[in-house]
Amino acid sequence: MNEQTMRPTTATVMMPRDTNAMGNIFGGVILSHIDLAGAVAARTACNKAVLRVVTVAMDKVVFKKPVLVGDVLECYAEVVRVGKTSITTHIEVIADRNGRKIRVTEADAVYVAVNAKGRPVPVGCNDQPGSKKEDQPGSGSKAGSQSGKTAGSSIQSGRVAKGGCRKSGSR
Amino acid sequence: MNEQTMRPTTATVMMPRDTNAMGNIFGGVILSHIDLAGAVAARTACNKAVLRVVTVAMDKVVFKKPVLVGDVLECYAEVVRVGKTSITTHIEVIADRNGRKIRVTEADAVYVAVNAKGRPVPVGCNDQPGSKKEDQPGSGSKAGSQSGKTAGSSIQSGRVAKGGCRKSGSR
Amino acid sequence: MNEQTMRPTTATVMMPRDTNAMGNIFGGVILSHIDLAGAVAARTACNKAVLRVVTVAMDKVVFKKPVLVGDVLECYAEVVRVGKTSITTHIEVIADRNGRKIRVTEADAVYVAVNAKGRPVPVGCNDQPGSKKEDQPGSGSKAGSQSGKTAGSSIQSGRVAKGGCRKSGSR
Amino acid sequence: MNEQTMRPTTATVMMPRDTNAMGNIFGGVILSHIDLAGAVAARTACNKAVLRVVTVAMDKVVFKKPVLVGDVLECYAEVVRVGKTSITTHIEVIADRNGRKIRVTEADAVYVAVNAKGRPVPVGCNDQPGSKKEDQPGSGSKAGSQSGKTAGSSIQSGRVAKGGCRKSGSR
Amino acid sequence: MNEQTMRPTTATVMMPRDTNAMGNIFGGVILSHIDLAGAVAARTACNKAVLRVVTVAMDKVVFKKPVLVGDVLECYAEVVRVGKTSITTHIEVIADRNGRKIRVTEADAVYVAVNAKGRPVPVGCNDQPGSKKEDQPGSGSKAGSQSGKTAGSSIQSGRVAKGGCRKSGSR
Amino acid sequence: MNEQTMRPTTATVMMPRDTNAMGNIFGGVILSHIDLAGAVAARTACNKAVLRVVTVAMDKVVFKKPVLVGDVLECYAEVVRVGKTSITTHIEVIADRNGRKIRVTEADAVYVAVNAKGRPVPVGCNDQPGSKKEDQPGSGSKAGSQSGKTAGSSIQSGRVAKGGCRKSGSR
Repeated sequence: MNEQTMRPTTATVMMPRDTNAMGNIFGGVILSHIDLAGAVAARTACNKAVLRVVTVAMDKVVFKKPVLVGDVLECYAEVVRVGKTSITTHIEVIADRNGRKIRVTEADAVYVAVNAKGRPVPVGCNDQPGSKKEDQPGSGSKAGSQSGKTAGSSIQSGRVAKGGCRKSGSR
Repeated sequence: MNEQTMRPTTATVMMPRDTNAMGNIFGGVILSHIDLAGAVAARTACNKAVLRVVTVAMDKVVFKKPVLVGDVLECYAEVVRVGKTSITTHIEVIADRNGRKIRVTEADAVYVAVNAKGRPVPVGCNDQPGSKKEDQPGSGSKAGSQSGKTAGSSIQSGRVAKGGCRKSGSR
Repeated sequence: MNEQTMRPTTATVMMPRDTNAMGNIFGGVILSHIDLAGAVAARTACNKAVLRVVTVAMDKVVFKKPVLVGDVLECYAEVVRVGKTSITTHIEVIADRNGRKIRVTEADAVYVAVNAKGRPVPVGCNDQPGSKKEDQPGSGSKAGSQSGKTAGSSIQSGRVAKGGCRKSGSR
Repeated sequence: MNEQTMRPTTATVMMPRDTNAMGNIFGGVILSHIDLAGAVAARTACNKAVLRVVTVAMDKVVFKKPVLVGDVLECYAEVVRVGKTSITTHIEVIADRNGRKIRVTEADAVYVAVNAKGRPVPVGCNDQPGSKKEDQPGSGSKAGSQSGKTAGSSIQSGRVAKGGCRKSGSR
Repeated sequence: MNEQTMRPTTATVMMPRDTNAMGNIFGGVILSHIDLAGAVAARTACNKAVLRVVTVAMDKVVFKKPVLVGDVLECYAEVVRVGKTSITTHIEVIADRNGRKIRVTEADAVYVAVNAKGRPVPVGCNDQPGSKKEDQPGSGSKAGSQSGKTAGSSIQSGRVAKGGCRKSGSR
Repeated sequence: MNEQTMRPTTATVMMPRDTNAMGNIFGGVILSHIDLAGAVAARTACNKAVLRVVTVAMDKVVFKKPVLVGDVLECYAEVVRVGKTSITTHIEVIADRNGRKIRVTEADAVYVAVNAKGRPVPVGCNDQPGSKKEDQPGSGSKAGSQSGKTAGSSIQSGRVAKGGCRKSGSR
């Protein structure tokens, strides 16, 4: 990831109310921002009718540097994998300290697309599967052309192919 | 401003705790994010020794559209004017609603650079004034070349010249 | 405004959680209280069936003095103008620092009366329009006597006449 | 207390973030506002050198009516008793629901004046004891004229005499 | 109460955002936790169909010791009395400061069981009244055996008999 | 872990302000409570002179069930490994929904003991190594009896032996 050229998914100024007893930013605040940024990225992988996602897992997070009051906490989230109902995102967390970029941590977070009642539903892809196939005959999403049932099932547990589901990073 | 290519200064997911009695995002929450984004931009116009800013004014703000829970509130702030101790910023506020960009409002906010005791101090410019003059002999910052005393005095109340103080938008 | 004899519309003790990185009260917190106080005043100008208002604009705000933890932030809001669907309020902000009154800022904020779905609706006046017109034939609200359609339209963009819509300040 | 003519010590618009699982305003939020309003009143009974107070007790509180989102929660606090280091306040809580005044609860809260290290110190009285005695020879604060040592000790555990320590309600 | 062997009903790490201007934990925060812990205990005295409670009163609270950032605020709540629609709880508040237990305060809080519309309803008892009477013929709940109408009315304003309604402390 | 007999390290009533756009409790709130509970447990493994810990890592977290407003979120944290400067904790998260215990997730979180300046310092053990050895000659903490230098170095990266450092769960 090149955070100089990319747009952050979320970017938040850290305030005194976000501190722990040490005066640094509380780890739970950082984890909250990771969770939200991943959810925003995950939604972009859903088709327009399926825009609700819930967090199902967050992979190991290692905090490399403390975050301070006044820092802008930037989360760069992108979709790395789309399953039938789940979307895996990768989030890089940078603290911008007056222009200096400090790598804080990174994480993988997994979301599931749900309907209004909270039940899992097929993710779908932002691109309409039919038109997409016509437009991009040489697309790498082979599984999709095989099953052809739903947009979501076309990219099962595979790394998102270039030109496939829109990544949040390229918004 | 072209918010498709620019990086937001701040970008925050709106949560139920940010709502007013109508269920929309409370105006005070939006004004808070404008204030913070402008401050982040203003800091980038300060030299490294002067990084504290306090809000002194916010110009008229017109809310064009309501912001909803789940929207990502994006603030695009840039420095538009640098005075001796004050920095004027322009902030555009966009609600990203699942990829759709909705213009919410825009504002001008003015900040003053202060020292650790909160007293106003000359802003300075990120660029060293000496090297700047050599690089840009035809720069419009006449006051600077006249006084030459402090970095801050070189750009008095004038529109920031291209290539002058670093704008937050180009971080 | 004489804040010694008037009742504040809102009055809130400033807490550590309201501070910015400088340790003063964050500008966004003050703007939030201005917004809320204006909304409370605006509601008093609505008839009983129309009590929801949304913020549409806030005029230039200049922060004259910093607000500190422990201050009571008092907002004195009053309705200064009532249009067909909009209500303009003026808000004075005083920090009470152990009895000492410090003028922090003042602002004009405009609200629109809305129904349960958030659609603008005529403001109405606390006073019944029919009886009002009979009682005050020489009232200056010319636009109102022309259209005569709704209570709200009777006071279009005019300074609120004495004896007209109840001002929040006189509660 | 006549809350129509008195000024509230604190007045706060209730927001969705203040609700309990029932959708009403959470009791803890109301108790917090009572505590803060009493503290503001208690401070007014301290001399200028002693302005920090800590809560030591709150008497029985009975909630008569629920408070709703959108209500302005008004606390009317006044000093009812001043001891050597303690100040007793009475707080009445009114919910202003679009102009309708609803009595929510009332409470007595006791505070102790403390120094910067949190140690109890004599309360003192806003009025200078010496000048006061000269101006008001017939004042009812007999204990004060007897001990004469500190302003605070002059009104020990007695109901505050009229013309004695300034009450918050009459600010 | 023996807080070494009992389970706390609530236990919360105190953060900088919970402080007052003195840097200690704000009294209102402690009162909020008392209110919530009592409500949790009160719910355990309700039958499964009646699980909503609202606070109706809190008895005198005396703060013995200040609570600090980093303390774990533990509330031990137990039901001490069950009336027809009301439940009285006793809450002990301990600050755990790195293993040292500091008694902060204690309180009695009274709740009323309500239905979805907020109307008071009979409390009921977790135990089915019929089977209970058969199992415990010698139970002390005389009022219950007299009226026998509803579970709630069976324990009117009496101290909860051992083996009667489940206390939160013994969860 | 047997959460029926153990004491939760933290237990918090979930409120409307903790919800996400779906109306469930926001994942970031749950992660915050995990982080805090682990930190509380980690502190108990430190000697009295070293009580500050900072989060360095959180292992994979899988959310099995949604948490709802009104649930008591219980975190059961225990120290599972103590290194020279780091402490590994295991946290089980249970939502108590009116007495019903719902397993939400579990996590391992790692903390580092730091001094007032935030620099890593040896953890130490609550038990004084010298006296401990006398009292418990058959204790499993062999490394401790070998090095004998600091309490902290006596249990390097090993599973905490029974009778060794006090676990938070057995407080």
